[in-house]
Amino acid sequence: MKVAGIWRRTIEREGDHVIVLDQAALPFEVTWLALRTLDDVARAIRDMHVRGAPLIGAAAAWGVALALREGHTIDHACRVLAATRPTAVNLRWALERMRGARDAEAEAQAICDEDAAGCEAIGRAGLRLMRDGINVLTHCNAGWLATVDWGTALAPIYAAHEAGMRVHVWVDETRPRNQGLLTAWELAQHGVPHTVIADNAGGHLMQQGKVDLCIVGTDRTRGNGDVANKIGTYLKALAAHDNNVPFYVAVPASSIDRSDAPFEIEERSADEMRTVAGVVAGKPARVRVTDSPVANPAFDVTPARLVTGYITETGVRTAI
Amino acid sequence: MKVAGIWRRTIEREGDHVIVLDQAALPFEVTWLALRTLDDVARAIRDMHVRGAPLIGAAAAWGVALALREGHTIDHACRVLAATRPTAVNLRWALERMRGARDAEAEAQAICDEDAAGCEAIGRAGLRLMRDGINVLTHCNAGWLATVDWGTALAPIYAAHEAGMRVHVWVDETRPRNQGLLTAWELAQHGVPHTVIADNAGGHLMQQGKVDLCIVGTDRTRGNGDVANKIGTYLKALAAHDNNVPFYVAVPASSIDRSDAPFEIEERSADEMRTVAGVVAGKPARVRVTDSPVANPAFDVTPARLVTGYITETGVRTAI
Repeated sequence: MKVAGIWRRTIEREGDHVIVLDQAALPFEVTWLALRTLDDVARAIRDMHVRGAPLIGAAAAWGVALALREGHTIDHACRVLAATRPTAVNLRWALERMRGARDAEAEAQAICDEDAAGCEAIGRAGLRLMRDGINVLTHCNAGWLATVDWGTALAPIYAAHEAGMRVHVWVDETRPRNQGLLTAWELAQHGVPHTVIADNAGGHLMQQGKVDLCIVGTDRTRGNGDVANKIGTYLKALAAHDNNVPFYVAVPASSIDRSDAPFEIEERSADEMRTVAGVVAGKPARVRVTDSPVANPAFDVTPARLVTGYITETGVRTAI
Repeated sequence: MKVAGIWRRTIEREGDHVIVLDQAALPFEVTWLALRTLDDVARAIRDMHVRGAPLIGAAAAWGVALALREGHTIDHACRVLAATRPTAVNLRWALERMRGARDAEAEAQAICDEDAAGCEAIGRAGLRLMRDGINVLTHCNAGWLATVDWGTALAPIYAAHEAGMRVHVWVDETRPRNQGLLTAWELAQHGVPHTVIADNAGGHLMQQGKVDLCIVGTDRTRGNGDVANKIGTYLKALAAHDNNVPFYVAVPASSIDRSDAPFEIEERSADEMRTVAGVVAGKPARVRVTDSPVANPAFDVTPARLVTGYITETGVRTAI
């Protein structure tokens, strides 16, 4: 990933701590947070300073490593970290790996390295869906900001861009937290043309023939192919199906859940609906848009029947 | 309609001018605007101080009456007013009526009275779709704020509420202009329970069985039953169809277009996407959420195959 023209990762070890790009401040401010303790990591995940299912897993792995160095037990560390975000399966997957590790820091680093390599492989695999001049619609942020590097849904877009293809991305704003603005920001860092649209607009654009391909990420994909992803994904999958637009999900192995555990849909705070982050008079601010009663389910489930295919580290498949 | 417990209309004659509830200031401030000239009315429509297809028609009628009193020709008045908003058919319908009127002020008043009576009739007709304990989802604002009184999509909800039924309304936020917050505000004025949700959430709520009925308004409905309405309506119609939730459109006669003219989809300003209205430190403010390239189509078209029925002044029908 490039930030201000410099290749970096979203999470990196630096001496006795790790640093992460603070996504709660983006796209208004580019700042890096130092995480030194278990509590630092848990708070960063819960308050979405780090977000995106694969990155949550990578951060949680470092959270365990830092916790052990603080003298916490592995059980305590895993309990605290598992409670931060309920839907992303990568979190539990990473904690399970850390439980079995002999060298926690080496394991956390391995999880990060594998995530970056896996995402790069997803990009290579998805490249065959791309062509010069293509218009791709994506929802939420499943780019390098959501992973250690390259992203999942955006990895094929970066691969195509690096290969010299012209790609234009329709970016869903993704209320209530506007992660689409993160997607726009990271695409801009790489010079990939893009247009932000309201979450309401994607169906209309598909009706107008302005979308050639949809690619989204996932927080958890079942063995049967059902996809939990950011709220609103299901609506775009319906529109893609209704307009014969191919709808693909980028799925790293760490996001696959072969258990029968029901999808747990996280209900997030009312404040996310009631306030919007932005800039007022040049300074970051949150504007209060309503005091009305609100609901804020954070994910929905797109049934496998609406998914054209899955882009994995090992190729594009029609089943998981 | 009730504002702070007092029954009023959204547009009323007051001496030599008309007053309208300023919807650009809602829900943060309740203020009434005096419109004295053609230019006042044209600006109020264009900048959405008055909005909602039926109310745009009623305001335009008064715009013609005020223009004639100023000494403008009817042709000039109609040209200026017709240019304000391209999609709502009611605007052209009202201007045609005014062209044929002998007493412009009496005709404008008649258009307002008929709109209020028509919406009340839509409410009575739609009452048969309602039942005690029902959960209704609506998109945008097609309540009394969008009409002279009662509303279109919300009229059956008010009718049910007045009849003593318990009704709960899921209110789509309706980015980019957040007209859902107007819907929440007007429902609150009447004490109708409601919950604001992100535009992304409706499909998930339908999958969960939490929506019994969808009712939306329309800016233009074709003789073949295709419905132009606020951007995002089509996505909710797809989700309703996928989950066997009845999807109804409230259609006053003035919103029916029996011509073959293509739907013209208004592209509104980038600023609507880039900024969000709200309150910062107790004062109305607009927060800038992005400087990215944006697109802002204001309407989409829901094909008749996704519409369960149409609620009109003369009853609920399966075709227009």
